Amino acid sequence: MSSKRVLSGMRPTGPLHLGHLHGVLSNWLKLQEEYQCFYFVADWHALTTEYENPRRIPEFSRELLLEWLAVGLDPSRSTLFIQSAIKEHAELYLLFAMFTPVSWLERNPTYKDMIKELKQKDLATYGFLGYPVLQAADILIYKAHKVPVGVDQLPHLELTREIARRFNYLYQTEVFPLPEPLLSEVPKVPGIDGRKMSKSYGNAIFLSDDEKAVRQKISTMVTDVNRPRKSDPGDPENRCVAFQLMKLYLTPEEQQEVIAGCKDARLGCVECKRKLADRVVEALRPLWERRRELEEKPSLFEEIMASGNEKACQVARETLEAAKVALFGTRWF
Amino acid sequence: MSSKRVLSGMRPTGPLHLGHLHGVLSNWLKLQEEYQCFYFVADWHALTTEYENPRRIPEFSRELLLEWLAVGLDPSRSTLFIQSAIKEHAELYLLFAMFTPVSWLERNPTYKDMIKELKQKDLATYGFLGYPVLQAADILIYKAHKVPVGVDQLPHLELTREIARRFNYLYQTEVFPLPEPLLSEVPKVPGIDGRKMSKSYGNAIFLSDDEKAVRQKISTMVTDVNRPRKSDPGDPENRCVAFQLMKLYLTPEEQQEVIAGCKDARLGCVECKRKLADRVVEALRPLWERRRELEEKPSLFEEIMASGNEKACQVARETLEAAKVALFGTRWF
Ligand code: SF4
Ligand code: SF4
Repeated sequence: MSSKRVLSGMRPTGPLHLGHLHGVLSNWLKLQEEYQCFYFVADWHALTTEYENPRRIPEFSRELLLEWLAVGLDPSRSTLFIQSAIKEHAELYLLFAMFTPVSWLERNPTYKDMIKELKQKDLATYGFLGYPVLQAADILIYKAHKVPVGVDQLPHLELTREIARRFNYLYQTEVFPLPEPLLSEVPKVPGIDGRKMSKSYGNAIFLSDDEKAVRQKISTMVTDVNRPRKSDPGDPENRCVAFQLMKLYLTPEEQQEVIAGCKDARLGCVECKRKLADRVVEALRPLWERRRELEEKPSLFEEIMASGNEKACQVARETLEAAKVALFGTRWF
Repeated sequence: MSSKRVLSGMRPTGPLHLGHLHGVLSNWLKLQEEYQCFYFVADWHALTTEYENPRRIPEFSRELLLEWLAVGLDPSRSTLFIQSAIKEHAELYLLFAMFTPVSWLERNPTYKDMIKELKQKDLATYGFLGYPVLQAADILIYKAHKVPVGVDQLPHLELTREIARRFNYLYQTEVFPLPEPLLSEVPKVPGIDGRKMSKSYGNAIFLSDDEKAVRQKISTMVTDVNRPRKSDPGDPENRCVAFQLMKLYLTPEEQQEVIAGCKDARLGCVECKRKLADRVVEALRPLWERRRELEEKPSLFEEIMASGNEKACQVARETLEAAKVALFGTRWF
């Protein structure tokens, strides 16, 4: 395992679905094999958009951590923790704030986009403007070398690099390494209606759904609409939403069989989607098992959470200490 | 003593002089008799303007606390502490940031003024913009009822009240009382050249000056320039800088004697200022004594500092805890 550190986080704003599993978590699982990973529940970040209704953040945070463990993130290899449990993030955010020009934040494209996108919420807040400053603190306090990002998040990471550079330059130090992006391809996961899977569209298959719910949802997935009867030949690759999901759950051979059967009008959609449901259930069963085991041992879960926080805290404290010595020229609170 | 709390702070950006003594500290001493006072060394605030050269902040901070003790602030009655030792300020600043509109901060007149005034420094930073948010955290975390302010600082305090109001409203709580201003009249303290006393003008009499330095500085104070010879009659009240200082150090009777002697051309400036120097030295001597005593017992000083921080921390922690329960609806980190 490389001694290089990876940092990534998720905002606890609701239950996880297959979109998160294939978009983020499967990548995290891979990274866990190769790097020293720090994965955190970004509950303070959740506040930037949920400040008017923050009551469910604690519940969503625990749920998130539980799902991560269920998915197979391993607390003995990766450091899994809750952002707000590590007060050092807030202190470093404050210190970074002091030398971060407002203009850097205003020109941040995500800031402009999100304000437009979420215009029903009042997001022109000081905290929202400073989102990238807090993010820089999150990343740099663990001296992360790599940060998995999508292309759209590159400007955020560039801001983190600028903040690190400015700190190192102002205080003539090398406390903060400049983190590199780990660009990852994110497969498209369709919701049952064919749009992108999303909690707010009501089209999601949640990791916490039970077998019955998963089978029911998959049975209602949109198929080739030009194929009202089994005897009509279909076009799975271009016209069937269910087939998009099959690409993630069926072997290449099985996919070929489906394509052939569908095009030849031999395979019916009900039967075809039942097979898909079998495979999804099969894939999710170990998650459900691990989740159930953890739910049966709440004190074990608390222990895992506490020890992750403890591990993160140690690293964060060390970095912050070094940063303050660079800043003040001496040890100072 | 009232159970009402007062909060005030000073930025550790250099040594204290007579301007601070008469402008701030004598007021603090009075308030100490009447209220439960929290006085803090605002080292994080100092960073907003000194981030390019913060190395002396720790030294200035200790110096500040030492001077406060020398002046007679009593650590058994008032809580004297260092802002950056109480991490809870940073966490509350972060929480307040989430719901504070940027527009509240941009319209803050102090923000606009200071950016103009200190244009040689690059102050258009995120931290400087958020100065009033950190200030609100400083004040509200001790549930201060009263805050001594000059008229020019009223808009800042109004912002603190708005932040408290918004928190209480958003989370349906009464955690934060709205602090009231304690308007105080600040006497004008002239520097030896007649301009306002200020470290940056090089015209200040510092509390840490020794007797020789004080006498030397007072002997060079500007007097009535229309009175080159003792035999010329003078106009102390309108034309003599030294006399402005006499108003703070001589009794009313003594002031009358000076006025009479000066107007009648009986009293010479050298003699007159020697009398002033006697009085200033007399007034400062107990400060010097107490300072020397403390300097001789560095471990006592450390203890006082640690115990002030400890007292402040307890109050801050309790308030933050209550604020977070209001915010999240449950205990959460
Ligand atoms: S048979 Fe399968 S691949 Fe073809 S349209 Fe139906 S569900 Fe889609
Ligand atoms: S005699 Fe005293 S009051 Fe008069 S001008 Fe000289 S210093 Fe000032």
